[in-house]
Amino acid sequence: MTTAEGVAGAHRRALLALGGAALLAPRLADAQTDPLPSWRSGPRKQALLDFVGAVTREGAADFVRPADRIAVFDNDGTLWVEQPAYTQVFFVLDRVRELAPRHPEWQQDPVFRAAVAGDMAGVAAAGVPGLLKLAGAAQAGNSPEEFQRIAASWFGAARDHRWRRPFTELTYQPMLEVLAFLRARGFTTFIVTGGGVEFVRAISAATYGVPPHQVVGSTFALKAEDQGGRIVLMREPHVDFIDDGPGKPVGIARQIGARPIIAFGNSDGDYEMLRYTTEGSGRRLAMIVRHDDAEREFAYDRESHVGRLARALDEAPARGWQVISMREDWSRVFP
Amino acid sequence: MTTAEGVAGAHRRALLALGGAALLAPRLADAQTDPLPSWRSGPRKQALLDFVGAVTREGAADFVRPADRIAVFDNDGTLWVEQPAYTQVFFVLDRVRELAPRHPEWQQDPVFRAAVAGDMAGVAAAGVPGLLKLAGAAQAGNSPEEFQRIAASWFGAARDHRWRRPFTELTYQPMLEVLAFLRARGFTTFIVTGGGVEFVRAISAATYGVPPHQVVGSTFALKAEDQGGRIVLMREPHVDFIDDGPGKPVGIARQIGARPIIAFGNSDGDYEMLRYTTEGSGRRLAMIVRHDDAEREFAYDRESHVGRLARALDEAPARGWQVISMREDWSRVFP
Repeated sequence: MTTAEGVAGAHRRALLALGGAALLAPRLADAQTDPLPSWRSGPRKQALLDFVGAVTREGAADFVRPADRIAVFDNDGTLWVEQPAYTQVFFVLDRVRELAPRHPEWQQDPVFRAAVAGDMAGVAAAGVPGLLKLAGAAQAGNSPEEFQRIAASWFGAARDHRWRRPFTELTYQPMLEVLAFLRARGFTTFIVTGGGVEFVRAISAATYGVPPHQVVGSTFALKAEDQGGRIVLMREPHVDFIDDGPGKPVGIARQIGARPIIAFGNSDGDYEMLRYTTEGSGRRLAMIVRHDDAEREFAYDRESHVGRLARALDEAPARGWQVISMREDWSRVFP
Repeated sequence: MTTAEGVAGAHRRALLALGGAALLAPRLADAQTDPLPSWRSGPRKQALLDFVGAVTREGAADFVRPADRIAVFDNDGTLWVEQPAYTQVFFVLDRVRELAPRHPEWQQDPVFRAAVAGDMAGVAAAGVPGLLKLAGAAQAGNSPEEFQRIAASWFGAARDHRWRRPFTELTYQPMLEVLAFLRARGFTTFIVTGGGVEFVRAISAATYGVPPHQVVGSTFALKAEDQGGRIVLMREPHVDFIDDGPGKPVGIARQIGARPIIAFGNSDGDYEMLRYTTEGSGRRLAMIVRHDDAEREFAYDRESHVGRLARALDEAPARGWQVISMREDWSRVFP
């Protein structure tokens, strides 16, 4: 009996050990291959993992075929820093200062005066439309290709004032992980930005792995001209589409041609995009990056003139939108 | 000596046999893996193969990295049949007839009268702008999603008058091979059509392997509205962008954000797109499908009111554009 018990016990211990290893294995594997290492465990990370699992599991009720796995991301404040002003504002200010001597008429316009004076608050107060007016005027007469070269060259040299780093390094590491994770699961990732489409295209591939044709943004009127026997595209000095607020669903329908199943935003400028995404049939997910981390980044919402977040925040619980706390949910902010 | 000669001779024959097999092997392999089996050998097929070889051979002078391998294709007359009228004309005629009883005011407009009467020549004479006016009015009040469902359902039931086949089967097999060949070599393939963007998107993935966001086309004004607590995109009854002629480079810059390195067209509506492509720096290729095969398809160029080809044809030799003869270069026309 003792021997028999001993044998049975050893057998049972062996089975338990095997069972334990088998139970443990997936956890270890998960930890080793965590696709979101800069996200702390918690309801937001879990919601994202659950969603991606549900729509990519073949045969599952919520399965979505790869062609329909459309993911959209706002850029300013969602993928990179937007405070104290949009990155494009700094670019435009530098360009306006550079071009101002050739444009004395700019002194008549308060936005241009603010720009030349480096008055950030004055520029920011004019909002996206003011910024784009400034941007259009500062860049009229360029082709999109020339403009992208100018922008790329500026990105190479410019540094932000707080961290003294290139603006393309002020992206959020956890969001870069989401982009890569979704692509690895068969999603096509799009940037849907209120910023100028060519400005973001200048850096989207290298910074986010998003090719130019997967960037939707605000646009300047564009005209094809025959100049000296060559077709030249000329950017005209007025904005003809603002990809912000209700413009975002319009831009998505225009360029992507399909309703996203997952959307990321951070401000009321993304409100309509988040609704357009989650009002579709089938399983959907919308997530809001909430800037509540003054130490590592910035803390702002209702009262901010850049990236104001009020309505989307108020309606998030009822609409089932996930509000990401930068402070709590992200173990790391920058790459 | 006889024996020595015999041994040497056998040795030489063995070497020749091996050499012959070695020389023959690549040809056999080429024939077995010809990526363009419906193209007859000749200067056009060779120009295409040479171009793709040159831009994809790592280390070669003309090498282009995959991200910049942008290929654009006109649709009507380049990827599928456009005679006796654009496929979209047949669709719009059917829709107009269906909706006409609700729109007595249409009787005041000659284009609408032609449409309701089934007068193809009268409709075709109005050209792309007339077609799009008709299309817009016939479809006002739909969302892009609804419209794509309507279009997809029409494609399922409609048949052309000559072959009595679904319009999606009147694509050109040699061009389907080009699309697949370029994608296999790392190109991203775009359709750049004068037709309505959502009309082509309804079938682009299944028919051409081109996802909706890689279709550039003419557009109706689009508005986001809050209807009964849902965001609804409404197609307004006027065309706000015509992706034809000089509009094609504009549409390409807008949506693709990069200059193509290879372009396919068939009419003067593609002239600016072909120029925009080949006026870029580095190695480029433009090819024109010439409809010279009345027996298997249609024969038309300068005098046609649909797919008129005159200026692009005249300038092709000086610009180095390849003119494809449907009759001579294609061993098969339809799949």
